Amino acid sequence: MPPHRKIAVVIDSVKRLQRIGATANLLNLLQKQHPAELAEVFNELPDKQRRSAFNTLLGKNSRLAIEALSELGFELGASMLIEYPADELARLFQELPSDDAAAWIGHLPDELSVQVLELMRRKDSSEVKNLLEYADQTAGRIMNPNVFALDEDLTAGQAIEALQGSREVEMVFYLYVVDERRHLVGVVSLRRLLLVSPETSLKRIMTAELISARVDMDQEDVARQVADYNLLAIPVVDHENKLAGIITVDDVIDVIKDEATEDIYRLAGVASDEHVFTPAAEAWRKRLPWLAVNLVTAVLAALVVQQFQATIDRVVALAAFMTVIASMGGNAATQTLTVIVRGIAIGELTLGNSRQTLGKEALVALANGLTFGIVGAGIAWWIVGNPYFGGILALAMVINLLVAAGAATLIPLALRALKVDPALASAVFITTLTDIFGFLAFLGLGTLFLQYLERAG
Amino acid sequence: MPPHRKIAVVIDSVKRLQRIGATANLLNLLQKQHPAELAEVFNELPDKQRRSAFNTLLGKNSRLAIEALSELGFELGASMLIEYPADELARLFQELPSDDAAAWIGHLPDELSVQVLELMRRKDSSEVKNLLEYADQTAGRIMNPNVFALDEDLTAGQAIEALQGSREVEMVFYLYVVDERRHLVGVVSLRRLLLVSPETSLKRIMTAELISARVDMDQEDVARQVADYNLLAIPVVDHENKLAGIITVDDVIDVIKDEATEDIYRLAGVASDEHVFTPAAEAWRKRLPWLAVNLVTAVLAALVVQQFQATIDRVVALAAFMTVIASMGGNAATQTLTVIVRGIAIGELTLGNSRQTLGKEALVALANGLTFGIVGAGIAWWIVGNPYFGGILALAMVINLLVAAGAATLIPLALRALKVDPALASAVFITTLTDIFGFLAFLGLGTLFLQYLERAG
Repeated sequence: MPPHRKIAVVIDSVKRLQRIGATANLLNLLQKQHPAELAEVFNELPDKQRRSAFNTLLGKNSRLAIEALSELGFELGASMLIEYPADELARLFQELPSDDAAAWIGHLPDELSVQVLELMRRKDSSEVKNLLEYADQTAGRIMNPNVFALDEDLTAGQAIEALQGSREVEMVFYLYVVDERRHLVGVVSLRRLLLVSPETSLKRIMTAELISARVDMDQEDVARQVADYNLLAIPVVDHENKLAGIITVDDVIDVIKDEATEDIYRLAGVASDEHVFTPAAEAWRKRLPWLAVNLVTAVLAALVVQQFQATIDRVVALAAFMTVIASMGGNAATQTLTVIVRGIAIGELTLGNSRQTLGKEALVALANGLTFGIVGAGIAWWIVGNPYFGGILALAMVINLLVAAGAATLIPLALRALKVDPALASAVFITTLTDIFGFLAFLGLGTLFLQYLERAG
Repeated sequence: MPPHRKIAVVIDSVKRLQRIGATANLLNLLQKQHPAELAEVFNELPDKQRRSAFNTLLGKNSRLAIEALSELGFELGASMLIEYPADELARLFQELPSDDAAAWIGHLPDELSVQVLELMRRKDSSEVKNLLEYADQTAGRIMNPNVFALDEDLTAGQAIEALQGSREVEMVFYLYVVDERRHLVGVVSLRRLLLVSPETSLKRIMTAELISARVDMDQEDVARQVADYNLLAIPVVDHENKLAGIITVDDVIDVIKDEATEDIYRLAGVASDEHVFTPAAEAWRKRLPWLAVNLVTAVLAALVVQQFQATIDRVVALAAFMTVIASMGGNAATQTLTVIVRGIAIGELTLGNSRQTLGKEALVALANGLTFGIVGAGIAWWIVGNPYFGGILALAMVINLLVAAGAATLIPLALRALKVDPALASAVFITTLTDIFGFLAFLGLGTLFLQYLERAG
């Protein structure tokens, strides 16, 4: 049965069992699912049923319930957890790996997270507090501090024994090798361990050149390292090169997805933590600043148009076609901006090859400006009945598309050089910029050649 | 030394060695780098130096050269490879794993790829041809057909021996277990193998419930499975459940990145295979269709404005402020569209919970419409000096934002239901739609209440 069919069947059963109040059967069904499947089930259930199903599962198998919740995403998950009392949450979180507990507590409201931390067992809460001390979106914040490491003087045979004894460590791919002061000195792959005789010391078979991340490294850079070097996990070290934790590839995939979402959102002027289920009031508050910026810039554009009131008064067709110039400029700018911002994000575009890129974008803008300038001129001539009107439209189109390409290339590169996220040069700024320049070019040319427009218009 | 500093030093050395013609030293330096580092070096070098450095490396260590090229991306890489004769490429590709060879050949121009396939060793070319028969962006196309699988009747000890003998298989994480007709029947983790006694049969320790992908499954769905279930690799089976290949997590990361790029690009009306290095002529051709669509819709918007020429003739301020309405509607629509399209892409938004989402977006639009309607009305009143003008602006703002939210929510959901990529409801369509509705609402209301506008305007 294909996965989505299976989920649909489970959802129907859950609803039915809830309706008839068959809690034992419901529990049985839920416990049979993988956390990822449960997340899909929760996702499809209406609000009330979701809370009820989650609550049923939480009472019996809290570990599975929390895992499903984390597959659902921390934002939506946290919004369900805040309804539980702090002591229950404390009991819940102290059973989790400390990186997961830290992620959850980091997503709770400040007051509640302080209460929960106080109510947790001292040992667990101090581990979580340590993680929470690292800045958000750094390697330290997302790493798992329980990393499997062995002393360099052990033999392969001893290492295999140690491995067999360590059932808790969830995913072991590499054995990290440390010296007596826990400095990271090498790595041995699990496969390698199988291939050598048991007496060989780890020091002899380990690879000393290994890629690690610093605790304060940005999570995006960590993800890029893991992706570029095709790693399954990356060890995290502190400023003394002491092994502090591990980040596994499944967490890296989450980072890559989140960062892609962030890029897409920033380009559109949406807060990076908004999602489909963000409550309306919060979504409104989060989108407000971008729309406010846009209102200011749009009013500026309107003031530009106001300056040409006398011109428009005499050739009203200018008012209709100025929007064509603005809209073409805005869309061409969005195209360029997207290619540039994504190129920077995936590392293709650097300051080194930026001049070449600017040249290319200018060429594309010129070609598009001429193409659509000439076509647009023809259409405008036909509608307005004045060839000069068409000529002015073509010229304004070329100017505006060149300005659009230049701004959409240079602004993100400049932001990058200033170590600001280039995606912040969002469509909001760039499109209003092209609005203003488009109006200036078109209405300015219209004023300059007013006599020709009036004569035949 | 931090990674980017190290790369900078290598690049400087490469340039220096190229200048003085020290090929042996250059080769030495290049061979010491990891493919990912080499890709960064190539990326930063100007065109001519890049080709020269690549050529030097290709002559001596073709495997490393090709690996670096694939880190650079298939588009840019293929543009460098097409300069080599077909027989050289054939020799090169037959040394690669067949999934990599298929990926390269799939990126070459059609004629060249046919030539190369003819010149390859029969055995290699037939493997590659098999892969190329699967549709683009399916599991079959990106899988590695050389998957390590063992018969269910073997023991753990025999399995370890087999593993020790199989040095070619690049990354073994799981041992897939097959029956005598190569049907996939189970999986054993490498760790599990270490924990049992050597006589245990694989049949007894394998997990029979395992997640696999069909050869014709979309690569995006494959990536989602691997991400959701935190897998390191996923086996690929044909329609008879026979093991056909394997997709590892590093390939999944590439898919996730590519699909994110595709989403970002589609929203902005950029072809999904364009990148920073696409030549200007090709980029122009690829962006043309979207701009053409935009020209048509922008002219439609202009025609709407034309209908209100008489009104604008009497109250020219309407021409200035109609752009404020259009621009606010366009930006609000882009925000909604982005949240919706991304929500669909990462699986948060489904048809099941879409009604709730539409309600939320309508509420946000109403709140934003009132907020910015009232603020905008104040500004317009102050600039134009007519309170009725402000009132009309506020009303038009609310109407346009509601239309924007509705269109930006429903169009992608409808496309999804029709199995079309929702990201195709790109900003190009939605923003022009809001332009037209904004003009209609604002100029229509302006015409309706013309007497009030003229009286005090």
